[in-house]
Amino acid sequence: MTTPAVANRVLTGITTSGTPHLGNYVGAIRPAVAASRAAGTESFYFLADFHALIKVQEPARVQRSTLEIAATWLACGLEPDKVWFYRQSDIPEIPELTWFLTCVAGKGILNRAHAYKASVDKNRADGEDDDAGITAGLFMYPVLMAADILIFNANRVPVGRDQIQHIEMARDFGQRFNHLFGKDYFTLPEAAIEENVATLPGLDGRKMSKSYDNTIPLFAPRNELKKLIASIVTDSSAPGEAKDAGSSHVFQLYQAFASNEETAAMRQAFAEGIGWGDAKQKLFERIDAEVAPLREKYEALIARPADIEAILRDGAQRLRATYATPFLAELRDAVGLRPLDRQDTATSTAVAKSAALPVFKQYRDNDARFYFKFTAADGRLLIQSNGFDAPKDAGRLIAVLKQAERADQLETTEIVLQVAVDEVLSALRDLREAEA
Amino acid sequence: MTTPAVANRVLTGITTSGTPHLGNYVGAIRPAVAASRAAGTESFYFLADFHALIKVQEPARVQRSTLEIAATWLACGLEPDKVWFYRQSDIPEIPELTWFLTCVAGKGILNRAHAYKASVDKNRADGEDDDAGITAGLFMYPVLMAADILIFNANRVPVGRDQIQHIEMARDFGQRFNHLFGKDYFTLPEAAIEENVATLPGLDGRKMSKSYDNTIPLFAPRNELKKLIASIVTDSSAPGEAKDAGSSHVFQLYQAFASNEETAAMRQAFAEGIGWGDAKQKLFERIDAEVAPLREKYEALIARPADIEAILRDGAQRLRATYATPFLAELRDAVGLRPLDRQDTATSTAVAKSAALPVFKQYRDNDARFYFKFTAADGRLLIQSNGFDAPKDAGRLIAVLKQAERADQLETTEIVLQVAVDEVLSALRDLREAEA
Repeated sequence: MTTPAVANRVLTGITTSGTPHLGNYVGAIRPAVAASRAAGTESFYFLADFHALIKVQEPARVQRSTLEIAATWLACGLEPDKVWFYRQSDIPEIPELTWFLTCVAGKGILNRAHAYKASVDKNRADGEDDDAGITAGLFMYPVLMAADILIFNANRVPVGRDQIQHIEMARDFGQRFNHLFGKDYFTLPEAAIEENVATLPGLDGRKMSKSYDNTIPLFAPRNELKKLIASIVTDSSAPGEAKDAGSSHVFQLYQAFASNEETAAMRQAFAEGIGWGDAKQKLFERIDAEVAPLREKYEALIARPADIEAILRDGAQRLRATYATPFLAELRDAVGLRPLDRQDTATSTAVAKSAALPVFKQYRDNDARFYFKFTAADGRLLIQSNGFDAPKDAGRLIAVLKQAERADQLETTEIVLQVAVDEVLSALRDLREAEA
Repeated sequence: MTTPAVANRVLTGITTSGTPHLGNYVGAIRPAVAASRAAGTESFYFLADFHALIKVQEPARVQRSTLEIAATWLACGLEPDKVWFYRQSDIPEIPELTWFLTCVAGKGILNRAHAYKASVDKNRADGEDDDAGITAGLFMYPVLMAADILIFNANRVPVGRDQIQHIEMARDFGQRFNHLFGKDYFTLPEAAIEENVATLPGLDGRKMSKSYDNTIPLFAPRNELKKLIASIVTDSSAPGEAKDAGSSHVFQLYQAFASNEETAAMRQAFAEGIGWGDAKQKLFERIDAEVAPLREKYEALIARPADIEAILRDGAQRLRATYATPFLAELRDAVGLRPLDRQDTATSTAVAKSAALPVFKQYRDNDARFYFKFTAADGRLLIQSNGFDAPKDAGRLIAVLKQAERADQLETTEIVLQVAVDEVLSALRDLREAEA
């Protein structure tokens, strides 16, 4: 009953805390809609409203942002009958899985999350307590994100470089769960880094981001779009002076919307000293050419919130019935939340039991020599051996180690302890007791 | 639609990680069943299986423990048609509320939780990293517990002294939520400390607890009960020697089951030098007299797990329909997880907005003098004034402070800053901007 792996399950979420801007469109929405049409791909697009609650305590803003982002996806061409399109908070299996993962996630790993650490660093710089003003929501965000991914066994998650760590955490939590409960319940996701999607500069030249308040709303009315583009910061070079396209934010924005030919022509115009006013006018026209038809659809959609609500509910309902509900039932069974009258499946306990023990593993490496490792019940490496000429040499040392009760019995140059000696001795003791 | 407060809503949970023992019975089950019959009380009893997942990774044990604990409550006289009797994992509103509370809970508060700190201390003593082997589950446990309580607006939670801190945290999280979203959604619970319930000693004299492996199972078969009681550690005083009842674990156990008259008689017997064998025989008989009829019911119940399953499901279903589902709908609306076509209720945004601002509050204290405080958007105290003879003196100083832009403008002996001066200045700025 495990959700079967398909060639490609791609999952994309946008936090419902603001109004979609050109940076979201170029960096996430446009490539995601294009990817949704690829063959052999099952796509998941969701409105991450549980995530929005971490930062936004304005209910009307969360609601409005959800509407705007949903309408944006649809206006940009997402087809809700061909992809999974849903609102996170319509899937109650997600917060429940979040708790399961919370119980296996190492707190030490969460301490190292970049977003959390950045807040701690800021507090330190301000002379505050490390955790001043930090909520558990910021701290636990990677666990919720892992649940978003793992509940659908998504195997590809398009992210920016700053999010790679979160995908690694999702892998870690998924792997721990698989290991503890003795079966590959979860597919481990991969971060898909879109190398050739440049981040878009904002009005002030920094990365376009609502945190910098430098965004151009994707569906700003035509006049406003023009005004905003006119306000992009440039250098003070005069018309006629040659301009460096590579360092110009106006050029970067243009490039994100233009064909190769158009880009080459604009580069030429920069070299020939196009005035900033003209360059911005061309930029405005190029963006508007792409956005205008989408804007029209967007405005029609957003005027009918009940229709969007119905689309989202329908998506979540089908998605739950197809994946989330049966998969969560399997996960509940795995952890022991079972109907009291259900007989325990003999295998699951046996497997879980053996999985929860430390283990010696022998293997042959690329150098053709023989090695072994000793790993803890939770999969961490405790001992790594050096290479042996013959497997029986490795086996002989393993037999000796298995009897070790004191630190000095582990003192050999043929192995390297990866953790404190006491922990290794304790794992050896667990193994002996289980094998007794 | 807020769940109305009743005179007394008492909530008790037992974690489904082991077999009920005499300590659970005397300390929790017996008093809880007695209390459930009090007039004017609405009682909530639940099997805390989400909590069990923090420590137990053996699914069969979680399932078995749930069955045993449910059968124990019923055998001990809980009437599922007169109280709310349910399994935590049958209420999906609980993990969802856990996420809402996660987003308002201060991480700094969780850092100070006793159970978490004890694990950190142990790691330090062992020379390990602070968080070695600690899961996010242990760290987040107080937030789940707060959700257990707040989802039903329970106002009394019988707990041991070691759990008082968790109730305080539940109050804190509930209060923050109320404050941020501008309405008293949650009743703030009180810890009900049962002062006269002694903790029961275990076989080795330490507190009876499954963590010490020193328990006497409540429904151990008669022979086993007798054997276990015989194995209780005593001093080596011979029959005929006077024994100190006060320091004897055998006596403490006896007292927990005996009437005042029986206890007095046993005290007398101790003074007169009753032999340990005889004392233990009397203890066994006294316990068995109380437990035997319950054991019979328990055995009949546990043989019919499907019946218990049905009772639990029925309880959860009624409880959800009565309280959890409508209340969570209200909370979802409060945070902004709303149907997209629902018009924003004018008040809620306005209230939330004003609630999210720092505020000056004037008041008269018991000493008949006039004071004011300045509190942050999240309710923390920023400035506390000294006493004034007249309210207008306080008002005059408030007017001055409201204009303060620099640290030196806050230098007066009439107020005491409770936080760093920069934070106060920033809150004053926020207030000015909002009032502009």
